[in-house]
Amino acid sequence: MSRFLNGKFASLEAYTPGEQPQDMQYVKLNTNESPYPPAPQVLKTLAEQDIADLRLYSDPDCAVLKRALAETYGVEKENIFVSNGSDDILNFAFMAFGENGAAYPDISYGFYPVFARLHNIESTVVPLKEDFSIDPTDYHGLNKLIVIANPNAPTGMALTVSQVESIVTSNQDSVVLIDEAYVDFGGTSCVPLTKKYDNLLVVMTYSKSRSMAGARLGFAIGSSRLIQDLDLLKYSTNPYNVNRLTLTLGKATLDAADYYREKCAAIIETRAYTTRELEKLGFAVLPSTANFIFAKKDGVDGGYIYEQLKKRGVLIRHFTKQRIKDYNRITIGTKEQMDVFLEKLKEII
Amino acid sequence: MSRFLNGKFASLEAYTPGEQPQDMQYVKLNTNESPYPPAPQVLKTLAEQDIADLRLYSDPDCAVLKRALAETYGVEKENIFVSNGSDDILNFAFMAFGENGAAYPDISYGFYPVFARLHNIESTVVPLKEDFSIDPTDYHGLNKLIVIANPNAPTGMALTVSQVESIVTSNQDSVVLIDEAYVDFGGTSCVPLTKKYDNLLVVMTYSKSRSMAGARLGFAIGSSRLIQDLDLLKYSTNPYNVNRLTLTLGKATLDAADYYREKCAAIIETRAYTTRELEKLGFAVLPSTANFIFAKKDGVDGGYIYEQLKKRGVLIRHFTKQRIKDYNRITIGTKEQMDVFLEKLKEII
Repeated sequence: MSRFLNGKFASLEAYTPGEQPQDMQYVKLNTNESPYPPAPQVLKTLAEQDIADLRLYSDPDCAVLKRALAETYGVEKENIFVSNGSDDILNFAFMAFGENGAAYPDISYGFYPVFARLHNIESTVVPLKEDFSIDPTDYHGLNKLIVIANPNAPTGMALTVSQVESIVTSNQDSVVLIDEAYVDFGGTSCVPLTKKYDNLLVVMTYSKSRSMAGARLGFAIGSSRLIQDLDLLKYSTNPYNVNRLTLTLGKATLDAADYYREKCAAIIETRAYTTRELEKLGFAVLPSTANFIFAKKDGVDGGYIYEQLKKRGVLIRHFTKQRIKDYNRITIGTKEQMDVFLEKLKEII
Repeated sequence: MSRFLNGKFASLEAYTPGEQPQDMQYVKLNTNESPYPPAPQVLKTLAEQDIADLRLYSDPDCAVLKRALAETYGVEKENIFVSNGSDDILNFAFMAFGENGAAYPDISYGFYPVFARLHNIESTVVPLKEDFSIDPTDYHGLNKLIVIANPNAPTGMALTVSQVESIVTSNQDSVVLIDEAYVDFGGTSCVPLTKKYDNLLVVMTYSKSRSMAGARLGFAIGSSRLIQDLDLLKYSTNPYNVNRLTLTLGKATLDAADYYREKCAAIIETRAYTTRELEKLGFAVLPSTANFIFAKKDGVDGGYIYEQLKKRGVLIRHFTKQRIKDYNRITIGTKEQMDVFLEKLKEII
């Protein structure tokens, strides 16, 4: 920290991203990336002319991509916000809608409390139930910015659409943000509810089910006024924040929807397989509708499993937070990757 | 605006980017992009594997690019901050270093006051001198965040390194940010001063001299502690904010430095040519060391020239601000583009 840093950030603790080792080949099951590359037609989308055109700024309105997203999700262009990854959108949403405080689960995406502290937003941290599920009634009538990952991370467990609706209708004076980063792996999207409720914002990403974590593309769907608010902040910080190549690839990805559905189905199948195998080894595995599972084995330290797997070339994610320190979050890779993981795991336990 | 928007943004006016028409072919001289594509070797840098690897997050540390930038600028990796375009860096800098207020010229990059209002930073707006130059002594001893584009936009006029140094040494308790977006077109960089002064931050971009406006890449050079502050904010908002492809292209660009120097020289030559031709037409042209010129003709309305050129397929930039409303900012394109501009201009005046 320099002596010039604004005092309000003096005790800010940044988010710690999962390890992104650049040097060694790991079986990388730690940051919920897809094990599959983008669709074959996406791999061939960029021509030399697209690189040449990088001399020009991108379209700050992202109009072509927005129209394609609107068609995909059955909404209008004015209901779509596009930005540089969903973290960027979450940041804007905390800024825009957190004036009366925010509420989110104690066990969820670790970035929510960072955004809250960054923007000096008072937070209500709501404990998950004993079984790690969210009790929707805990969020009724709070009238704060409510932020729920659905499915939740790192548990993988989801609320039903009607449970989300009960939160939305009971908080009519505040925004309910549903972070659907993982919805394509067996969850049900709340996007249709955005047509009924002006206080619901659904946030999605290309980083998981669309195999484009490294392209930085997120979008949000909500009432046109919520979208205008997010645009106000985007145009007041970094209007051209989405790269030209990403916009082109993002559109091509929507055109290859069948490929991605097939890959999501493969991940769902591999998740079921991995869960069964872990249970055979005596692990307790939470019921996941995401592209990861959250598992522990009584009597074996979670941090120990993480460390031992890393030594053997397999990266998973361990969180040191007391309530979940026995667990590990394991991204679902290909069946071959999961077999390596299971084999190395057997050497350890 | 929705009824949920944080009241502190109720009167925020976003930055208005230059027009980015997606539908019609203009001679586009309005947003200071390079008329030249990236270097031939950069156009061929990306392989299908790079697109396939988009399934993985980018390196949040941008280590490979940082090391190449450090070598290019004769500093250490720890002195480099990399982010999603220089607007992104300016935003972080206002957040990080604006606690005691900010000071910048009345005529400069129109985004500075937006950042100040966004972060509720009290601003001292310092008028340029009558001839549109910056008087460095106006900034002595302010001990606020001082933000100066050098060369300045839209005037194109520059301070010398020793003038900048006088500002840096007389504001030892605050950060002096020198925005060198346009330095490669004949200016002199203040980067060497960052080794002497811990309160100087130099911000640069790939959007102008490196023909990559659409790739979104900016960087800053300063003392390691200033860089740590910027990283704290980056890791608290969007750690992976630079795209994998952009990182790869950004490194390849540095390896093709000769090409870009040659293109900068061509732009400098075309700038001199365009200036001479405009002067023949009775225009007053400010002395520019940027890739644009700022010009007016007595008795002809600046807005009229802008509108009439647009009707004829040539886009330049007009600002409605009272003090500069007689002027237009004209990006330097290829000689062929400037000849079209001059020809259409002759039809108008």
